[in-house]
Amino acid sequence: MLAHAETAALRRALEIAADPAVPLGPNPRVGCVLLDAHGAVIAEGHHRGAGTPHAEIDALSRASVSVAGATALVTLEPCAHHGRTGPCADALLEAGVARVVVARRDPNPLATGGVETLRAAGIDVELDVPEDLAAAAGLLNRGWEHGLQHDRPLVTAKTALTLDGRVAAADGSSRWITGEEARSEVHDLRATCDVVLIGAGTARIDQPSLTARRPDGTLLPHQPLRVVMGTGDIPPLPAPAGAGDTLLLRTHDPSAALAELFAHGRRHVLLEGGPTVTGAFLRAGLVDELIVHLAPTLLGAGPPGVGDLGITTISERLDLDLVEVAPRGCDLRLTLRLRTA
Amino acid sequence: MLAHAETAALRRALEIAADPAVPLGPNPRVGCVLLDAHGAVIAEGHHRGAGTPHAEIDALSRASVSVAGATALVTLEPCAHHGRTGPCADALLEAGVARVVVARRDPNPLATGGVETLRAAGIDVELDVPEDLAAAAGLLNRGWEHGLQHDRPLVTAKTALTLDGRVAAADGSSRWITGEEARSEVHDLRATCDVVLIGAGTARIDQPSLTARRPDGTLLPHQPLRVVMGTGDIPPLPAPAGAGDTLLLRTHDPSAALAELFAHGRRHVLLEGGPTVTGAFLRAGLVDELIVHLAPTLLGAGPPGVGDLGITTISERLDLDLVEVAPRGCDLRLTLRLRTA
Repeated sequence: MLAHAETAALRRALEIAADPAVPLGPNPRVGCVLLDAHGAVIAEGHHRGAGTPHAEIDALSRASVSVAGATALVTLEPCAHHGRTGPCADALLEAGVARVVVARRDPNPLATGGVETLRAAGIDVELDVPEDLAAAAGLLNRGWEHGLQHDRPLVTAKTALTLDGRVAAADGSSRWITGEEARSEVHDLRATCDVVLIGAGTARIDQPSLTARRPDGTLLPHQPLRVVMGTGDIPPLPAPAGAGDTLLLRTHDPSAALAELFAHGRRHVLLEGGPTVTGAFLRAGLVDELIVHLAPTLLGAGPPGVGDLGITTISERLDLDLVEVAPRGCDLRLTLRLRTA
Repeated sequence: MLAHAETAALRRALEIAADPAVPLGPNPRVGCVLLDAHGAVIAEGHHRGAGTPHAEIDALSRASVSVAGATALVTLEPCAHHGRTGPCADALLEAGVARVVVARRDPNPLATGGVETLRAAGIDVELDVPEDLAAAAGLLNRGWEHGLQHDRPLVTAKTALTLDGRVAAADGSSRWITGEEARSEVHDLRATCDVVLIGAGTARIDQPSLTARRPDGTLLPHQPLRVVMGTGDIPPLPAPAGAGDTLLLRTHDPSAALAELFAHGRRHVLLEGGPTVTGAFLRAGLVDELIVHLAPTLLGAGPPGVGDLGITTISERLDLDLVEVAPRGCDLRLTLRLRTA
């Protein structure tokens, strides 16, 4: 059980861990808050990307009073391994911390063990944190965790569909299928991913800037890498000031594309492709999550949202689990996961 | 305000009005409960279709004690006109009823005025009934009310779609897109309509029985008229014992089809057509309500749920209002209304 001040401090640790100035990618985002015996904050720290101090070390270095007897609240289990920095579990021990609250165990087999190290040294380690904070700690690094388990980035496919499954009218016009709320949400989604990926067709037809913007048009702090895949002619993407870098992947193979992005340290791909690219990823079983903004409108004709999946009869259907349904203005947002057999 | 016994009695009046043995059609369904001064039930009555006594007369005729000083709870305003029966407002006055609770005013300009007749005679008339009961009283006869206002039946179109807007796989197989709960709900829906209508194409391909059945396969008490429209070759529908009558409408014109059904006394059509018929009704602006059972599954190919609507560009899109979203097993039920400009 957490004291009230501890719950608040852990919430704060999650907040600072999610600092949009910290690059996403192959390192987890972590926050740490140190509390004295009275529940007052001694120091806060967070990890700022590969090669920089871990959150615990950052917090310890900012403490202007003794940390002896303090409680450390960390969003991820302190590491027990010697990486580019020394083990954080040892650093907490040396500083004299008396209690450590851990929101999430480290799923990285190379780094885990911090909890055991601390407990062996007599430190009070608390793993039972409020459910919402545990969930937030998991979400914070879900691309990174997915990479550890699957050796490829997490893929979230996003599409805006009419009720009759179309992404554009017969003449190709599609602005806009969905309302402002749904469109604004896509920008927030881009800001939580480290890649936004489209196919050459979408690049040619829509010429999207693929930036993450606020409703007023200004850029959000984090901009994803903008990736176009395909082997044909790809026009340059519009490049407004502050937009993410652009990468062309000369392949039609989703698996090859993901392998290359993973090697570049990318961990969460937002797939905003048209029917062909989305269909190719689905057919390859490489979509982990599907977000559909469903507009209560009909077109009766026009390109479908999902291209050929190689399915010819009903028994071959591709079933998903509906995880969440939420209204977004006039539209509905459906979140679905592919069933893993 | 209603006394507790009055609310219970009005609820009962709504229940008996909805007796599935009463044919739907050109007469409203009405229920009436008579309470004595202590709130005890004197008698119940309901209307059983054209040419039979109105609910108030039915209840009065069943009373074995005096009705003087009683309260009558009616689901629809007592009529003030001389139709095939005398005005119910007069009958209530003659019986000595002291108070009348009316769940819904009569929208029929020929029949309304009962409230005024009763009030002019010094009767206490209460129109302020609980919101849910007022809504139920409206729903009870919504086909009939729609007919009074629009001179055609109410049209509810129903379709089962995949997330990508398809009603079948590429080879035409479609059993089943949706799960058991959604399919069972379609049968309940058939039992609330007086017509179920399909096109010749669906009749040929699916050979549906179009009966309203319980999950165990037995027939529900009310069976809709089974209508197939089209000018081509139409095979006979399967006709299990107890199924509704069959009618062939030799037209492709939704407006002509509805006019003929209206002339036959039909007031609520459930459109279960395929893409062509559904598209034709939508294009003609003759769908009042659309119920979509949306299955979280993808096919990537196969016939779309809605055929050509004559829409070529996004600005011509057919917008609907999403009225309700409800989970149905693994599926979602969306209820939509066409925007009336």
